[in-house]
Amino acid sequence: MVDLEQLIAGARAGKVRDIARMISLVENGSAQVPELMALLAPSAGTARVIGITGAPGVGKSTTTSALISALRARGQRVGVIAVDPSSPFSGGALLGDRIRMQEHATDDGVFIRSMASRGHLGGLAATTPAAQRVLEAAGFDVVLVETVGVGQSEVEVAAAADTTLVLLAPGMGDGIQAAKAGILEVGDVFVVNKADRDGADVTVRELRTMLTLGERVDGGWVPPVLKTVASTGVGIAEVLAAIDDHGAWLAASGELEQRRLKRARDEIEALAVVLMRRRIEAGAGRDRLDEEAVQVVAGHTDPHSAAARLVNSLDASSLVATTRRGDGTTSDEETTS
Amino acid sequence: MVDLEQLIAGARAGKVRDIARMISLVENGSAQVPELMALLAPSAGTARVIGITGAPGVGKSTTTSALISALRARGQRVGVIAVDPSSPFSGGALLGDRIRMQEHATDDGVFIRSMASRGHLGGLAATTPAAQRVLEAAGFDVVLVETVGVGQSEVEVAAAADTTLVLLAPGMGDGIQAAKAGILEVGDVFVVNKADRDGADVTVRELRTMLTLGERVDGGWVPPVLKTVASTGVGIAEVLAAIDDHGAWLAASGELEQRRLKRARDEIEALAVVLMRRRIEAGAGRDRLDEEAVQVVAGHTDPHSAAARLVNSLDASSLVATTRRGDGTTSDEETTS
Repeated sequence: MVDLEQLIAGARAGKVRDIARMISLVENGSAQVPELMALLAPSAGTARVIGITGAPGVGKSTTTSALISALRARGQRVGVIAVDPSSPFSGGALLGDRIRMQEHATDDGVFIRSMASRGHLGGLAATTPAAQRVLEAAGFDVVLVETVGVGQSEVEVAAAADTTLVLLAPGMGDGIQAAKAGILEVGDVFVVNKADRDGADVTVRELRTMLTLGERVDGGWVPPVLKTVASTGVGIAEVLAAIDDHGAWLAASGELEQRRLKRARDEIEALAVVLMRRRIEAGAGRDRLDEEAVQVVAGHTDPHSAAARLVNSLDASSLVATTRRGDGTTSDEETTS
Repeated sequence: MVDLEQLIAGARAGKVRDIARMISLVENGSAQVPELMALLAPSAGTARVIGITGAPGVGKSTTTSALISALRARGQRVGVIAVDPSSPFSGGALLGDRIRMQEHATDDGVFIRSMASRGHLGGLAATTPAAQRVLEAAGFDVVLVETVGVGQSEVEVAAAADTTLVLLAPGMGDGIQAAKAGILEVGDVFVVNKADRDGADVTVRELRTMLTLGERVDGGWVPPVLKTVASTGVGIAEVLAAIDDHGAWLAASGELEQRRLKRARDEIEALAVVLMRRRIEAGAGRDRLDEEAVQVVAGHTDPHSAAARLVNSLDASSLVATTRRGDGTTSDEETTS
């Protein structure tokens, strides 16, 4: 068992190793995660959470790196979570990206971490917000969550951010692709990166048209479409200004509170599903599941009926131990040092 | 409400429209799905289920089309489900593929259907096996399930098949990529398509080496690595022979029963999670979730504790109506004609 209080104190004092260890606990689905989250609850909402998403090759890491520099220049501490939902391996696909961000490796005000889904129960919907909370507790002013856009996952990540940047590149992430992927609905700021390439203006125009046609329901905010060449820093100041504008709008309109409520709701729901799956996979549920599977294969029943019987057979009492933590009382999994 | 008995009778009589309507019910998550599945239960396991997966561009549809021809040549009826887990839209990304399979459009012994995940609760893990069962009930001898390989989803699809074909192409799907994606573990037959291109032999050799190094736990079956040029039919007879060999091995070794049990287990579990999510989203659960979200945003509690309280508050009685069906008795959602 890790001494969580000590880890948290270390993280608050800026010890990189302690922050990294807490995120590893989250990523590995440690049994101590619920306790850690209970301890971190009071820090919730202290950082500005910015999502950065887009297809592979649009320049997400270069843009993230440029944004880090801009945020650092005004004295803000920046935590970065780079997520690759398609890879079951941590770091693998993101190795190149990490190298691109290496200029910040020696900066104490920057913490960068890759996370992979690893097929965990609850997946990134459960682990990404927990990692965000670790970075908030560690006192970062801004948390950047960078995700490779692959359909549904980018929508999930967008739901977890206060402000979502959608990156496109001329010719590869055109308007129709964006519409298909559902990203027009989730982007708060659109950035056409590699704007020195042919077709950038066409992509910008297409996006603006589609954003005008689309019926956005977030009353009042018109997502700007900006151009950048992140590798040289061109346009990054404007992107940061747009992020700030969106932040001011979020606060003034009450939308920030709404988004954070929705985020909490989604997270609780994802975790509730994890708990329910665990119940199924525990002793009695597992035996019942095995028996039902035999009946389904024999053609005596169908999976839907079997699932309904299984759910009804679950005993609610199995979770009592876990529920105590929220009240500030201790549990059997109490920290030992 | 659709008259399910009539639909099933129509499907058994070979009416394409009735088969298509049943699959649409499944794809749209109709309230009649549980009843439909209960009615189809006795046909479970009557078809040979073959999964075909691989990265975009390796020639999955061309190979599927060639396999259909080979299966038809020996008189077997073939149902095909083409799945695109990355697309929230039905048909979109698969349009080109469907065109490639068009030569079978006028053949009564072939039924081809694209399915998309549509972000349904339970996703493809819930809908693909249900669609398979429809095709089994309609009397198809072989069900081919074609999936675009994108990480986790191809593993899921493999879990749903008796025999899984993994397709690669020289230079794009090399051995290391295959190892990273976890497909070495799921493939029963490996096919290097476009084998007339440079590098085919290297890919074959790499795969064979990795398959020898990997510790496969399915006692006895050594996955063959074959070469094809699906567009001209070269090598397809050998692929079909390998599928037959694997089928014979599955039956003789008892592995077929094991796989079908595991498949049923996974399906029941996925559906149980869907049912549990529905409980959360129903009246009381929803209010509770909203209240907990407010407390989380305020920093008074954390999502893990909130999730545990939410799960414990759920009332098992809300699912009683659904459980009746498996016993052959009727429910309020009884068919009306």
